Amino acid sequence: MKFADTAAERNPLLRFTDLTLRGAGQVMFMNNPVTGLLILAAVVWGAVAEDLPQVAIGAVVGLLVGTLTAMALKVDRDTLRQGMYGFSPLLTGAAVPTFLDNDAWMWGYLVIGAATTTVVTLAVSNVFTTWGVPALTFPFVLTSWFLMLGAYQFHKIGISSLSTPALPQPAGATSFDMSFPELATSMLKGVSQVFLIGDWVSGLIILVALAINSRWAAILAAAAAVVATLLAIALGAHSTAIESGLFGFSAVLTAIALGCVFNVPNWRAMLYALLGTVVTVVIQAALDTALAPIGVPTFTAPFVFATWLFLLPKADLVPTPHHKPIADGVVSGREATS
Amino acid sequence: MKFADTAAERNPLLRFTDLTLRGAGQVMFMNNPVTGLLILAAVVWGAVAEDLPQVAIGAVVGLLVGTLTAMALKVDRDTLRQGMYGFSPLLTGAAVPTFLDNDAWMWGYLVIGAATTTVVTLAVSNVFTTWGVPALTFPFVLTSWFLMLGAYQFHKIGISSLSTPALPQPAGATSFDMSFPELATSMLKGVSQVFLIGDWVSGLIILVALAINSRWAAILAAAAAVVATLLAIALGAHSTAIESGLFGFSAVLTAIALGCVFNVPNWRAMLYALLGTVVTVVIQAALDTALAPIGVPTFTAPFVFATWLFLLPKADLVPTPHHKPIADGVVSGREATS
Amino acid sequence: MKFADTAAERNPLLRFTDLTLRGAGQVMFMNNPVTGLLILAAVVWGAVAEDLPQVAIGAVVGLLVGTLTAMALKVDRDTLRQGMYGFSPLLTGAAVPTFLDNDAWMWGYLVIGAATTTVVTLAVSNVFTTWGVPALTFPFVLTSWFLMLGAYQFHKIGISSLSTPALPQPAGATSFDMSFPELATSMLKGVSQVFLIGDWVSGLIILVALAINSRWAAILAAAAAVVATLLAIALGAHSTAIESGLFGFSAVLTAIALGCVFNVPNWRAMLYALLGTVVTVVIQAALDTALAPIGVPTFTAPFVFATWLFLLPKADLVPTPHHKPIADGVVSGREATS
Repeated sequence: MKFADTAAERNPLLRFTDLTLRGAGQVMFMNNPVTGLLILAAVVWGAVAEDLPQVAIGAVVGLLVGTLTAMALKVDRDTLRQGMYGFSPLLTGAAVPTFLDNDAWMWGYLVIGAATTTVVTLAVSNVFTTWGVPALTFPFVLTSWFLMLGAYQFHKIGISSLSTPALPQPAGATSFDMSFPELATSMLKGVSQVFLIGDWVSGLIILVALAINSRWAAILAAAAAVVATLLAIALGAHSTAIESGLFGFSAVLTAIALGCVFNVPNWRAMLYALLGTVVTVVIQAALDTALAPIGVPTFTAPFVFATWLFLLPKADLVPTPHHKPIADGVVSGREATS
Repeated sequence: MKFADTAAERNPLLRFTDLTLRGAGQVMFMNNPVTGLLILAAVVWGAVAEDLPQVAIGAVVGLLVGTLTAMALKVDRDTLRQGMYGFSPLLTGAAVPTFLDNDAWMWGYLVIGAATTTVVTLAVSNVFTTWGVPALTFPFVLTSWFLMLGAYQFHKIGISSLSTPALPQPAGATSFDMSFPELATSMLKGVSQVFLIGDWVSGLIILVALAINSRWAAILAAAAAVVATLLAIALGAHSTAIESGLFGFSAVLTAIALGCVFNVPNWRAMLYALLGTVVTVVIQAALDTALAPIGVPTFTAPFVFATWLFLLPKADLVPTPHHKPIADGVVSGREATS
Repeated sequence: MKFADTAAERNPLLRFTDLTLRGAGQVMFMNNPVTGLLILAAVVWGAVAEDLPQVAIGAVVGLLVGTLTAMALKVDRDTLRQGMYGFSPLLTGAAVPTFLDNDAWMWGYLVIGAATTTVVTLAVSNVFTTWGVPALTFPFVLTSWFLMLGAYQFHKIGISSLSTPALPQPAGATSFDMSFPELATSMLKGVSQVFLIGDWVSGLIILVALAINSRWAAILAAAAAVVATLLAIALGAHSTAIESGLFGFSAVLTAIALGCVFNVPNWRAMLYALLGTVVTVVIQAALDTALAPIGVPTFTAPFVFATWLFLLPKADLVPTPHHKPIADGVVSGREATS
């Protein structure tokens, strides 16, 4: 990226495009504009395939509004250039049109939500930097919870597809006979659901986008989608949720974070990431239960909570007896080992 | 206040009266005994007008018990004298008789609650001082949530006016035809609801009390009540909640905090406070939904959460390109720019 | 313990046994292997008496898995030897078979839960060390909430005895005529419920186990069980909960923590611990209400929240006017004054 970097340095529009695309990549920890561009392509593809183009438009609007808000708030330049203020607003921008009626009120709500996501990113980052741990996508989760819960009280903000609030009930038996292709598409949907899209082609494009920047990230994402889906099947989770990839997306993010972003990939880190992935599936189920009475989705909270719990121990995962200090860059330098 | 300050210095009873009245003023960030006295007058007026004199008595009892508990715990003298240990217990003392049956059990519950609020104030302050952000009224909110939720399990603690626990439902259409005077009284009730009182005269007295100490605080309070009420109407919130001022009180506090207490008032701070006020309205609606199944009110949590999220970024809101460091006094020196 | 300590130093198996038994003792802040052994005996007695031997087996499995996970993660040796990584997984191991069906799936779930509890212990400790306050049993509470809530979504993880999710209702009047022996057994069950066991003999054995290491701890535990039970009766709590000791266990832990572990026992500390105990009863009731719609128990959360709120103020509880600095050892040196 040597040439592009220099060109971006000189031209303000190129620089803005570069940091915005990196923002799209940073949803999956990839500080790479090409990865970001491919991810946006995957989102557009999936949104159109689902006949919800507003989700892709919302994602781009969220990405732009969030990034511009960060610039208006005079944030740290280096962090801005890494795309760190783009990824959470992008997700807020994708979530709002996924669950709320597509009208002018929704778009106003989305813009305010995306700007707020940037404020929340700064707030949560300042708190968690105390322990050398990043905000992850929690600013998206928190802001979107507020927006969805708020929608229940506002007649003008119509709810299109939130689950009806209900008391949780123990899962019934689900007969499960998936063919192998169905299973594989469920797993790929798990990857695309990171962006609230259930489309296996999008999932495939995202894996390619990851591989361009980090083979480890692509491998871990695919492995986590497989592990999470098979575990959910084994434990007898509801087939609709499994088929839509809803047990996969948080697990995918946890595996990338624990396996190759915040730890150096080695066999101890892999075991740790495996436990983290399993725990993410349990937390996914737990939050599905806990949020049922208030009718909002978990978003990526299972990933955030699991990853925080597994990063905060500052576990020494180096296989050799010789300790290497964990790099200070844990927070800002969200670069995956390639 | 030069003379009063010196007199208070010499006479222990005067000193105690002074710091107690400042405690009443600090509910709205006003470190001023005259403002505090007027606020208490507004509370008495409103409580009598609503035929709930126990709310005013409870507020005073809470203020006294909370302040005495702080003294028994040998807290920092300067902070005590600024009234920082009075405002949250005052609110707990107003909340308990608002929602629970007026009998001897309730008064015992109130006294324990007010003393606990002071302990919680010390706890929350110690945590949030890590990030240079104050506890705000969260000690009141947390303690009162415990007291209200607890009341459901205790037959002797009778519930008089908590909402029946229910699963949330999307808001229906509400025909809305308010005359201008009705609209204006709703807004003034928004100001008085800071003290759990829905009375427009009280709201007016409080605005005067604010103006005595800080014109900016009075202007921001009035502006926030207008903005929050109009926004709630525009978004189609339930008319009963709007008419009672329930969308106003947290917004009022957020606007004062972000507009003139923790930031120097200028056009960038005003824009920031405006976004914070809008977000407070959304969080108010969100918490109304989230708390519906457990039958407790939001109290001032929307103000606390919004203000924390907007203070934690330590946003540089100085309009000129030259940076001024944010004063260290952010936490203890809760003095509004007058 | 001089001889045992030296022997444990030399023999790895003895050392492991020693630190594991201390882990059992640390549930009640007792860094003493004999106390730990007696506590395990009490758990076995109670589990067999309740015809739920799997609860005792689960506790031991949890203790072992949690301790081994800590060793695999190369935790600090001194902290490990004090049993600080055993007590929370022990409780997770007791909780899982108490509420979930006893089959192979449950045991797998338990092992993953116990290992996760150790990771969460490291995470929570790292966060709370910022304010010189320990994680207490929160890692057990949080992990077990995830496990129980998750069970609702997994058909293979059968629920045996969680309360059916329901909206809270105000408590009705309960006629209460307990004989003195019934009252005394309820109080002793309050002690044993720390380990999710409702058996008065177990409670008695645990009091003896405490007295071996710290007379203050035994006295405070007994006193808190009495105070909490009488307060719950006075406030009109539901008789079934009182008879099962469900208002006692968190109060017992709060009283030990505030009365003799983190404060030097004196009359001011006793008053403070008394207020903390009363508040624990209120928080117990509050969380019973708050968790009703999602069908999970409070576990020891009332103890954790009350104790955090009462430790964080760093209150100066020395009766003389001369201040003594609070020892640094507050976090790691969880030794009760004997």
